[in-house]
Amino acid sequence: MSHLITDAATFAADAIDGFVAANPRYVRRVDGGVVRSTVIPRGRVALVVGGGSGHYPAFAGVVGPGLAAGAVCGNIFASPATGQVSRVARAVERGAGVLLSYGNYAGDVLQFGQAEERLRGEGYDVRTVVVTDDIASAPASERHRRRGIAGDLTVFKIAGAAAEAGLSLDEVERLARLANERTRSLGVAFSGCTLPGADAPLFTVEAGMMAVGLGIHGEPGLEDLPAPTARGLAELLVSRLLAELPDGVDQARGSRAVVLLNGLGTFKYEELFTVFGAVASELETAGVDVVDAVCGELVTSLDMSGVSLTLLWVTDELAELWVAPADSPAFRRSAIDAEIDDAAIEVADVATGAAGEVDDAEQQRAAASALDLLRTAHAAIIEGAEEFGRIDAVAGDGDHGIGMSRGVTGALAAGERVVAQGGGIVRLLAESGEAWSEHGGGTSGALWGMALASAGTSIAADRTESAAGAGAADAAPDARAVARAVAAALAGVQRLGKAEVGDKTLIDAFAPFAVELMSAVDRGETLAAAWSRAADAAQAAADATAQLEPALGRARTHARRSLGHPDAGAVSFARIVTAVGQSLQA
Amino acid sequence: MSHLITDAATFAADAIDGFVAANPRYVRRVDGGVVRSTVIPRGRVALVVGGGSGHYPAFAGVVGPGLAAGAVCGNIFASPATGQVSRVARAVERGAGVLLSYGNYAGDVLQFGQAEERLRGEGYDVRTVVVTDDIASAPASERHRRRGIAGDLTVFKIAGAAAEAGLSLDEVERLARLANERTRSLGVAFSGCTLPGADAPLFTVEAGMMAVGLGIHGEPGLEDLPAPTARGLAELLVSRLLAELPDGVDQARGSRAVVLLNGLGTFKYEELFTVFGAVASELETAGVDVVDAVCGELVTSLDMSGVSLTLLWVTDELAELWVAPADSPAFRRSAIDAEIDDAAIEVADVATGAAGEVDDAEQQRAAASALDLLRTAHAAIIEGAEEFGRIDAVAGDGDHGIGMSRGVTGALAAGERVVAQGGGIVRLLAESGEAWSEHGGGTSGALWGMALASAGTSIAADRTESAAGAGAADAAPDARAVARAVAAALAGVQRLGKAEVGDKTLIDAFAPFAVELMSAVDRGETLAAAWSRAADAAQAAADATAQLEPALGRARTHARRSLGHPDAGAVSFARIVTAVGQSLQA
Repeated sequence: MSHLITDAATFAADAIDGFVAANPRYVRRVDGGVVRSTVIPRGRVALVVGGGSGHYPAFAGVVGPGLAAGAVCGNIFASPATGQVSRVARAVERGAGVLLSYGNYAGDVLQFGQAEERLRGEGYDVRTVVVTDDIASAPASERHRRRGIAGDLTVFKIAGAAAEAGLSLDEVERLARLANERTRSLGVAFSGCTLPGADAPLFTVEAGMMAVGLGIHGEPGLEDLPAPTARGLAELLVSRLLAELPDGVDQARGSRAVVLLNGLGTFKYEELFTVFGAVASELETAGVDVVDAVCGELVTSLDMSGVSLTLLWVTDELAELWVAPADSPAFRRSAIDAEIDDAAIEVADVATGAAGEVDDAEQQRAAASALDLLRTAHAAIIEGAEEFGRIDAVAGDGDHGIGMSRGVTGALAAGERVVAQGGGIVRLLAESGEAWSEHGGGTSGALWGMALASAGTSIAADRTESAAGAGAADAAPDARAVARAVAAALAGVQRLGKAEVGDKTLIDAFAPFAVELMSAVDRGETLAAAWSRAADAAQAAADATAQLEPALGRARTHARRSLGHPDAGAVSFARIVTAVGQSLQA
Repeated sequence: MSHLITDAATFAADAIDGFVAANPRYVRRVDGGVVRSTVIPRGRVALVVGGGSGHYPAFAGVVGPGLAAGAVCGNIFASPATGQVSRVARAVERGAGVLLSYGNYAGDVLQFGQAEERLRGEGYDVRTVVVTDDIASAPASERHRRRGIAGDLTVFKIAGAAAEAGLSLDEVERLARLANERTRSLGVAFSGCTLPGADAPLFTVEAGMMAVGLGIHGEPGLEDLPAPTARGLAELLVSRLLAELPDGVDQARGSRAVVLLNGLGTFKYEELFTVFGAVASELETAGVDVVDAVCGELVTSLDMSGVSLTLLWVTDELAELWVAPADSPAFRRSAIDAEIDDAAIEVADVATGAAGEVDDAEQQRAAASALDLLRTAHAAIIEGAEEFGRIDAVAGDGDHGIGMSRGVTGALAAGERVVAQGGGIVRLLAESGEAWSEHGGGTSGALWGMALASAGTSIAADRTESAAGAGAADAAPDARAVARAVAAALAGVQRLGKAEVGDKTLIDAFAPFAVELMSAVDRGETLAAAWSRAADAAQAAADATAQLEPALGRARTHARRSLGHPDAGAVSFARIVTAVGQSLQA
């Protein structure tokens, strides 16, 4: 938070104004908060929610058909005032009364409570359902003292759907209260949040620790534990929520729940999804039937890092209201009717060769030799992976080591499969190349996959030629065939990657390697000697890439930072061919 | 990022599995990514999008009716492999061909490009539209070299709507290309992001600086500037995008745009909305007609902080496709038909008195005296605000200073208005109390508002009694009336706040103050002397709150940390009554 220069005095109001400007189809601004910009029919109960700002989508984000009629927006982390609540309520009352609903915090209770009195004094029928879902904030015996956190959403959704269905205020109140009775949440936090314009966080959580039950404004929780795995976190949250089932829910007799997994601000989506996967699996093990789920940011705390799990234990009535259509800026249940496709999907990879015909013995021997070299390359890459990553982190996204490791591991497995099946060198190179690309991903996966595949194609062509009688039987042609295959691999990589020598890519090492190998073989050197000489050239060229300006075309490069550092792709190339050269000489 | 213990090798796959578990109504898992779980009719063009993971909602979050048929999901920040692309495409192809669309990054171009070749070889009709919206990544003369960022969404939405409308692959491709031609984005970053399981950020941005045009993986941008205000950022982004209008767009002749303001991960909603408000105003000034807007997290970079602005300059055809219904986990255009309500909304505050009748001279004099004391309180609060905030930050959310400042400032303004209008003491206390609650918000606003209002009610009752002949005309009854008003204020605050002495709230200072004032007045001391004595008692009591355990009922308190620290509400109370006492003695 607070990346911009911010005036704390106007920040909350500016944020609401901007929110309204971005969402005119949903909301319009009134003094005190926002109300639906769409028609609310006469005779419909008005759900008015609210609280402090800083919790978006709570509260302005859930205004719209099927949800809240209006949201009262206080300052950052501060309850709105009585007058604000009253004005928002008056703006949306349509003759059927108002349900006020908000999280159970002292300031909100005071201000909304005074507003309720005031509105009643003006002749409106007004009820209140305070959300108390946070099991960490008070024992079960004192549920009325518990805070409201992400369970706000389940109560609001049920109440909003009941209002949208045209139910009376009595009914809307009853259902909202039932939803609150059946909603339980527990959250954990990993870091605090910083108020707009502030220099330091409002509170902190010790690094590497997780504060269980810490409130969304830093209120005290239950205990501090070391940060767990996704699975460990899911076990903790699910087990504690299952330990306190609402009246009428019997886990053993089949219980159904709506599941909300809420990110608090900087616990981002991908990590949140890993936790959700573990939560779903824990709930399945516990025999809970998940009626529906929402996994995202629902009730945040500015830039706080944390996650909360909410379970709404549904009755048939609640389940129906939960899935009813709703449309608000941040939470929607679609009215688009899309049928689930339960046909099996065929995604087998047509291009990946199944066990082909068995190749001849010479081809098999060549495949076995190539597999040995692939093992050498594998060992060299695994050993160098961390260093490749470090070099890449200077100029790129630091994943060159892990990408190369994944790629060569996949390639080696494919090669071993081919050899075990009696395949020859051409099939080995084709399938290892495919696997390298597949497992490595990214640019390096594509390029190394292409290199192997192109080498295979060259050898296949040589074999055809040789079968036609043009080849000789002595050792020299083998070395020349290898040199030609390397040249073909280089050509393939250049065709695919479109890089030239001097662009600060692996081509800078690959090109001198291929040239030196060819000329040494042409001079009659053995393959092992020629390869080692070429590897030395590759290494020198890789080192020299430190002096090069980065290639313009490499969109993922930190151009400015890579000056003075070698290119990771060239370094890993040189390392691999050097290791292979040593293996050939042994 | 990386709050949990994470296995980087399985993280991306775990995240996709969890995402699918949370969204079965939208997606199912296939080898290589996710595809729609809902029926895709035969003869419909399949839009396949994708790229590296870590950018949610890109890319799995935009799979669903009216959007993508499938998303290919690579590892974190690494392009998916050719085989993955091919398998996802095969799973969603329905006889009308496939449009591949993705951001322009080297790895993606290689892998998707190879997949296109492969799929064509298998007989599918496949086209590709690469997104190139980021104007910072290459000059306008080399648009084909530009990266794709949040403009992904405009291209995907247009292509998805075209496919959903049953258009041919030729048409879907043409429209996607047109959308890309007419989409421009520019982003800024304030901090880097950390890869799952990594100890340090992948890259950093200097504190207090803003990197203009920095890519979503840290690719180099245009320049570094000091972090601006929301308005300054909006001016920068809008002016640079308006400086490069696509062919066919003439700003002077009325241009229409869809506006996306995208948060990159930890640039949170409220701050994003303040920027959107400024962007909308800049665009209005520039004469751009905003057809529609999205303000939220659309293409993120893990926990990176930054924001990007995207403009899609629409034709009639594009505008229609943009607003067509779509339903995916992260992006929806609703099919719920809700009519915009253009009736004026009446939100005037019925309870706030308009200029009432002019009170008698004695009441006016009393009001003028009370206003003087309110000025004294105002000065004391403004002076102490920073300290109140510091004390509150130990035990609460640190907003006590700003809340009290806002409240008393509002109260003083209301009091001045009442006096200028010839209002008396009762009206002054009622309206100042209302204003304090309104402007201060939160608990302190409600309580101080109630204190003033209750005092006013007490004085009004005294006046009625006095008018009935029970009161005397000398000075002593005035002091007693004040003491009674203070007692009434205390009673009001206790009734509203439900705190008792010893709960570590302002009551701990308020109660001894009221008691001491009453007994000193009863002993015949002057109001000034009695008040000062009472203020001393309040100060001593406020200091003593440091020794108290925090009140259980105060949900917003960091109970554990407040031990050994005084209560901010009691401290500010003592400070105010002390200042008022000095003013009375002067």
